[in-house]
Amino acid sequence: MEFSNGDIFVGEVIGTAILILFGAGVCAAVTLNHSKAKASGWVVIAFGWGFGVLAGAYTAGPLSGGHLNPAVTVGIAVDTGQWDKVPLYILGQMVGAALGAVLAWLVYYAQFGRNDQPTLGIFSTSPEIRNPVANLLTEIIATMGLVLPILALGLTKGLGQSGTGTLVVAFLVVGIGLSLGGPTGYAINPARDLGPRIMHAVLPIPHKGTSDWGYSWVPVAGPLIGAVLAGLIFNAAF
Amino acid sequence: MEFSNGDIFVGEVIGTAILILFGAGVCAAVTLNHSKAKASGWVVIAFGWGFGVLAGAYTAGPLSGGHLNPAVTVGIAVDTGQWDKVPLYILGQMVGAALGAVLAWLVYYAQFGRNDQPTLGIFSTSPEIRNPVANLLTEIIATMGLVLPILALGLTKGLGQSGTGTLVVAFLVVGIGLSLGGPTGYAINPARDLGPRIMHAVLPIPHKGTSDWGYSWVPVAGPLIGAVLAGLIFNAAF
Amino acid sequence: MEFSNGDIFVGEVIGTAILILFGAGVCAAVTLNHSKAKASGWVVIAFGWGFGVLAGAYTAGPLSGGHLNPAVTVGIAVDTGQWDKVPLYILGQMVGAALGAVLAWLVYYAQFGRNDQPTLGIFSTSPEIRNPVANLLTEIIATMGLVLPILALGLTKGLGQSGTGTLVVAFLVVGIGLSLGGPTGYAINPARDLGPRIMHAVLPIPHKGTSDWGYSWVPVAGPLIGAVLAGLIFNAAF
Amino acid sequence: MEFSNGDIFVGEVIGTAILILFGAGVCAAVTLNHSKAKASGWVVIAFGWGFGVLAGAYTAGPLSGGHLNPAVTVGIAVDTGQWDKVPLYILGQMVGAALGAVLAWLVYYAQFGRNDQPTLGIFSTSPEIRNPVANLLTEIIATMGLVLPILALGLTKGLGQSGTGTLVVAFLVVGIGLSLGGPTGYAINPARDLGPRIMHAVLPIPHKGTSDWGYSWVPVAGPLIGAVLAGLIFNAAF
Repeated sequence: MEFSNGDIFVGEVIGTAILILFGAGVCAAVTLNHSKAKASGWVVIAFGWGFGVLAGAYTAGPLSGGHLNPAVTVGIAVDTGQWDKVPLYILGQMVGAALGAVLAWLVYYAQFGRNDQPTLGIFSTSPEIRNPVANLLTEIIATMGLVLPILALGLTKGLGQSGTGTLVVAFLVVGIGLSLGGPTGYAINPARDLGPRIMHAVLPIPHKGTSDWGYSWVPVAGPLIGAVLAGLIFNAAF
Repeated sequence: MEFSNGDIFVGEVIGTAILILFGAGVCAAVTLNHSKAKASGWVVIAFGWGFGVLAGAYTAGPLSGGHLNPAVTVGIAVDTGQWDKVPLYILGQMVGAALGAVLAWLVYYAQFGRNDQPTLGIFSTSPEIRNPVANLLTEIIATMGLVLPILALGLTKGLGQSGTGTLVVAFLVVGIGLSLGGPTGYAINPARDLGPRIMHAVLPIPHKGTSDWGYSWVPVAGPLIGAVLAGLIFNAAF
Repeated sequence: MEFSNGDIFVGEVIGTAILILFGAGVCAAVTLNHSKAKASGWVVIAFGWGFGVLAGAYTAGPLSGGHLNPAVTVGIAVDTGQWDKVPLYILGQMVGAALGAVLAWLVYYAQFGRNDQPTLGIFSTSPEIRNPVANLLTEIIATMGLVLPILALGLTKGLGQSGTGTLVVAFLVVGIGLSLGGPTGYAINPARDLGPRIMHAVLPIPHKGTSDWGYSWVPVAGPLIGAVLAGLIFNAAF
Repeated sequence: MEFSNGDIFVGEVIGTAILILFGAGVCAAVTLNHSKAKASGWVVIAFGWGFGVLAGAYTAGPLSGGHLNPAVTVGIAVDTGQWDKVPLYILGQMVGAALGAVLAWLVYYAQFGRNDQPTLGIFSTSPEIRNPVANLLTEIIATMGLVLPILALGLTKGLGQSGTGTLVVAFLVVGIGLSLGGPTGYAINPARDLGPRIMHAVLPIPHKGTSDWGYSWVPVAGPLIGAVLAGLIFNAAF
């Protein structure tokens, strides 16, 4: 089955928007004042993002297969050798990620309106210890831990193309968050980090704090490097 | 397969009763004194509601498909264009939701008997920040995050008609709770909110506090608007 | 497929032993001093018991179908009308539950050796508010919430006879724990409560406290009544 | 399907490396300072290890079936009677476990660089109460709780050879952690304990503390004994 260009773009926009709606949403839920989930902990963050992948991938599945992540798209391209649709997938993911950040902001509109603390952590990742080489390494390895199983599962059309496969990927993302998210907050997805960071800079949130552009290249470069490495290892080993 | 009118009504009553038994039950478990799960946190709430969907949908599946939610019924109707059974489904859901609230009250009968604090939060949703426009927006977007994946999964007969599909919807509901429940407590289901609210007003619970009818239209209108929007987006995009 | 009498007995012994190993194990993990999981909360209890059902049911599946619970056996008998194997299943479940309690005690042998607090809660259930009528009602309704979905799923051979079905039942048991376990600790299984209670009375544990025989009839009678009611409702409605 | 020797070795190296990356990773996440998951509790540990099994087993599945654990390999050998590949599997698992420990160390490189407390618990298990007989017994029974269900599930090729089966094993491992991990930290896998222990001794971590070689035989011997017993019980009963 070939997806049309229009379906790919629409699918990735909708799917990635849902992913970020859930993901930025859960970070808002745990962080903002006047939220019922305030301070409910890391397990809530990790499952929220994982089930965001579930929701987004199943929704995008019929249209684009459901990549939702430039690192997934690049890993699949390294595996299959087909690169022509890569820019289109990534464009849809970036638009979707920005849209999803706006949706999450609307869901927590009243909470953001009373905000009095830095909010970048709701939108994008930041390191606990600022060390670009170490942070990059963290993102590279964590992304390899995402993309290698996806390729081994044979999900070359996308995360939403297989019933059990999508469930597996969702729990895989939960696992990456629980295990590998400690140092940098696990971007493992350039669109997930860059799209919402742009919206953080744009949206009118009181006391929102810096958008930290100095760090923004790490969660883009790290996942892309990790995806290429995962693809190369997969091609060599399997 | 066509469901008979009798089966639809009975299925939705039983399935929605089980959903609310689990859902109101978990809110009682975490809130009431003399409960072993007292103060066990948001992750317990979210998984309790999600597995309530699991239990209710699988039970109702053979009889009515298992909608359990007027927003699901309306979203499917917008998608399929078949509206004739919609009132019957919603009637069953309302009766079932009220019945489920009574069952949860019976499970926690001894705890309710010693109650000394407001209990509406066990039965129905309420906003952390009272702002009807923002609260409505939260419910609209959260419900779209429920109904759009359900339609993309092709569950046009109901949530309980497919093995893996039901499991996916259960985790989807967990995810919505974790990520989007912070501002309003995620009704995303008019019957889930209105049925138990009526029973809260009726049941003899000491110090039970207000049933807050002034807010009650938001968790009815928001999910229905979200369901229609999700159906329209699905029809346009898929 | 008919199971032989020998396989039924062996399957229920092994399966129920594994269930109680995990279930009593998780209660020990959260309760006893010198345990890495000390005080890790209700979510740990509920998932530990649920995954105990997973482990036990899959193991018993090829031999006996995997009932692991007299309430499941009785519910299936009411549904199918076949009562001749019921005593054999229940005998195996009782022996298995007692064996599982011993295994959990061995796993936590060093911890039990230094025990200085009542330990009945590790083996058997007890109510937060002692009120036999209310406690019985809690167990009846919670067991109906277990058995009705099992019958609707068509698991008339047992919980371990279907891949996805077993996973669903495991999460269902997690959900019952989260939502309905607050008042009595959710026996929902006479063997799960009575077998370990006998072993609690027998095992040499310092400062182990009372085995509370006065309450012991409730977690036997409640689940059996609930199972019969669930079977009758199922036969009437489905 | 027969796996080639080369595929078996590569599959077990990659799969076990991913398992330990996630497993040692989640222990680092919860333990080390400057980690976003610091002190997030036992439920995070247990799900992190379980989803590490998910990730590793699916990845290794196409190459080696995905054993990832000498206890699994030995249990399958006792069941099937085929022992010729056992040394090769175990060699791959040991190399993979050591490699995974290095990967986890790299992910938390900046955090380890500022370490000021003993770190063995991130790499290997240690008992809460040091009692070799009791600790051995704990590991034997916990490993039987792993291997017996795996054999009953018919996973004689490995954990990654079946869609739903792998998911079940992942939750089974979560359950063992929640329920049986309290006394010793549940090695249930000689490679998982010994490989990272060697790397703990080797890696340059400030204030890393003892590698506790005196205890190291327990998490090797216990799981192997448990695996043999599980295989014998399986052969006798099924």
